[in-house]
Amino acid sequence: MAITYELIKTCKQTGARLGKVHTPHGSFETPVFMPVGTLATVKTMAPEELKEIGANIILSNTYHLWLRPGEDIVEEAGGLHQFMNWDGSILTDSGGFQVFSLSDMRQIEEEGVHFRNHISGAKLFLSPEKAMHIQNSLGSDIMMAFDECPPYPATYDYMKASVERTSRWAERCLKAHQKPEEQGLFGIVQGGEYEELRKQSAKDLTSLDFPGYAIGGLSVGEPKDVMNRVLDYTTPLLPDEKPRYLMGVGSPDSLVDGAVRGVDMFDCVLPTRVARNGTCMTSNGRLVVRNAKFARDFTPIDENCDCYTCRNYTKAYIRHLIKANETLGIRLTTYHNLYFLVKLMGQVRNAIREDRLGDFRDEFFEQYGFNKPDAKNF
Amino acid sequence: MAITYELIKTCKQTGARLGKVHTPHGSFETPVFMPVGTLATVKTMAPEELKEIGANIILSNTYHLWLRPGEDIVEEAGGLHQFMNWDGSILTDSGGFQVFSLSDMRQIEEEGVHFRNHISGAKLFLSPEKAMHIQNSLGSDIMMAFDECPPYPATYDYMKASVERTSRWAERCLKAHQKPEEQGLFGIVQGGEYEELRKQSAKDLTSLDFPGYAIGGLSVGEPKDVMNRVLDYTTPLLPDEKPRYLMGVGSPDSLVDGAVRGVDMFDCVLPTRVARNGTCMTSNGRLVVRNAKFARDFTPIDENCDCYTCRNYTKAYIRHLIKANETLGIRLTTYHNLYFLVKLMGQVRNAIREDRLGDFRDEFFEQYGFNKPDAKNF
Ligand SMILES: [Zn+2]
Ligand SMILES: [Zn+2]
Repeated sequence: MAITYELIKTCKQTGARLGKVHTPHGSFETPVFMPVGTLATVKTMAPEELKEIGANIILSNTYHLWLRPGEDIVEEAGGLHQFMNWDGSILTDSGGFQVFSLSDMRQIEEEGVHFRNHISGAKLFLSPEKAMHIQNSLGSDIMMAFDECPPYPATYDYMKASVERTSRWAERCLKAHQKPEEQGLFGIVQGGEYEELRKQSAKDLTSLDFPGYAIGGLSVGEPKDVMNRVLDYTTPLLPDEKPRYLMGVGSPDSLVDGAVRGVDMFDCVLPTRVARNGTCMTSNGRLVVRNAKFARDFTPIDENCDCYTCRNYTKAYIRHLIKANETLGIRLTTYHNLYFLVKLMGQVRNAIREDRLGDFRDEFFEQYGFNKPDAKNF
Repeated sequence: MAITYELIKTCKQTGARLGKVHTPHGSFETPVFMPVGTLATVKTMAPEELKEIGANIILSNTYHLWLRPGEDIVEEAGGLHQFMNWDGSILTDSGGFQVFSLSDMRQIEEEGVHFRNHISGAKLFLSPEKAMHIQNSLGSDIMMAFDECPPYPATYDYMKASVERTSRWAERCLKAHQKPEEQGLFGIVQGGEYEELRKQSAKDLTSLDFPGYAIGGLSVGEPKDVMNRVLDYTTPLLPDEKPRYLMGVGSPDSLVDGAVRGVDMFDCVLPTRVARNGTCMTSNGRLVVRNAKFARDFTPIDENCDCYTCRNYTKAYIRHLIKANETLGIRLTTYHNLYFLVKLMGQVRNAIREDRLGDFRDEFFEQYGFNKPDAKNF
């Protein structure tokens, strides 16, 4: 098996899991946050910086790499690790989410999805087999099954049909996957906010015995309490001895809330995307370093942070760079935001180790400001 | 004196100078190429990377920092070094060149120049006293006198009046400079392609005893042989015991040709500007990594280069990044181009040490392709 999971400890206070995932490109402790490198690069960052931040696994994107530069070029380069000079672990999504979020000219059939290239407009077709072929060419450590990501909200009937198709597609993915000894394939549990459908999806997928399971179809516009409720009844449906991955979730509160509910892996473009507007995650909450009030603020973005950015640069300088469209500004805020989330997950793991993740959650939410009535999230 | 120059050796083959410039923020060997950090950042680079490349002095820009973020903010931060987290030497130009190149609404008077902000259109006034005040606030190691940069070509009469005004302004700069013990002020020799006026300008300025002299008004559109001829008769007019700085010149051939003619310091946006289009300087000449022919080229930009970029990344990957507008691509080409020029100057210094800069020039031009009839420069 390419991917194995080791459960180290369960938090007595919350049931959260401290674990370790082993991949062909090293191991990482969980719960973990995975920075997103859509186009074979985590925007503005060099691989050494990701290592320095403490990231051991990053995410990349099947759909985008298929279009640019093409999975054949990546394969010819020796695979994605060699192409992008990253020797840590890589997870690739299946392209399913992009097909449904970037394209409005799509037609779903049992065989797969017809849609248009979001850049050129050309006609494309993606299927479970094609998604496996691309990911086998990319050579990621963790591949994702090709699923349908239904819109939010969706009717029960739509969702039921979709879940059943996603299960059939998952089975086809398993059959099409050519390198199970080198790459681990995760199944994706769908079902929206319908408990019965989540149960059905989890049952279908766990019967196929994937080395890991993702929870999909969350963070697609539903309120936070809906997400937490879905997690509350979905994670118990998944086997203890496999890692659980909550897709597309990366706001600080949701990471902690997900860990509390037994999630092991998270990814999101949020920290890198907001960094490009000069928005930072700090121990005291959201900070928009572009703001005029920081023009003469010669203190770091976060006094409690010991990252490269906060050790060396002031808000005034970073604000100047971002206002002047200087790349270094975005590098510095991106570095800080990724460091913040990676460090947060380290704190979460420590809290699990000490059976106090519930207390940590309360303290963190209080200091971050999530408990305030005017709390601003991302 | 804030700035001193030590002449180590003169090349027997060419007369080129090997030297060392001492500043309040360390020393650097000459001939030297200075990367340009217009807005208090060398585009895409972190200060540690500039150090790693071997740069000990960078250039920044009076005019641009005056407008953004304002020299008062930089001063409040503790000066430009502290503001941008750079503990090496900094040279700031005077703003003269930008006033004449960026603004088309200018009116030159004896007192100074009225013009419009190239961003907001607001009315501005820059004078020798104002340029000194700004540079004193920035706290650069080397300041430049405020001069007029006449257009190319200019008539003899226009140039003569301009040179005389620049000399009067130079005297006012010396008087207005408040920190001669902490910051060295260089005079700028103008005169276009008129030998007589270069002589007059050099005589006027050397009589004022600046700690260094720049040669201005070159690389403004004149043919390369005109630049070389002007250097041939201008550098001998300058005192041996002071550094000589050729402003705005950075193509590989011109750096070597300038060193041959006794120039010690160079700066140019060229390596960083062309890097943003994916154009690289290599030991075998100009290389446009964006080109389709490199889509499957898994070799480095320059096989003879041992920089971070060439040690870790392929043309295919860098091409992909640049075509996808990913910042890392420009970081990597910028890094390589700066490294190429900084290393070239190291080779030039070694050649001077060994009395063979003439031979080095011939070899370098041959390998780079400058001797070919279809040679492409930048
Ligand atoms: Zn930080
Ligand atoms: Zn290189």
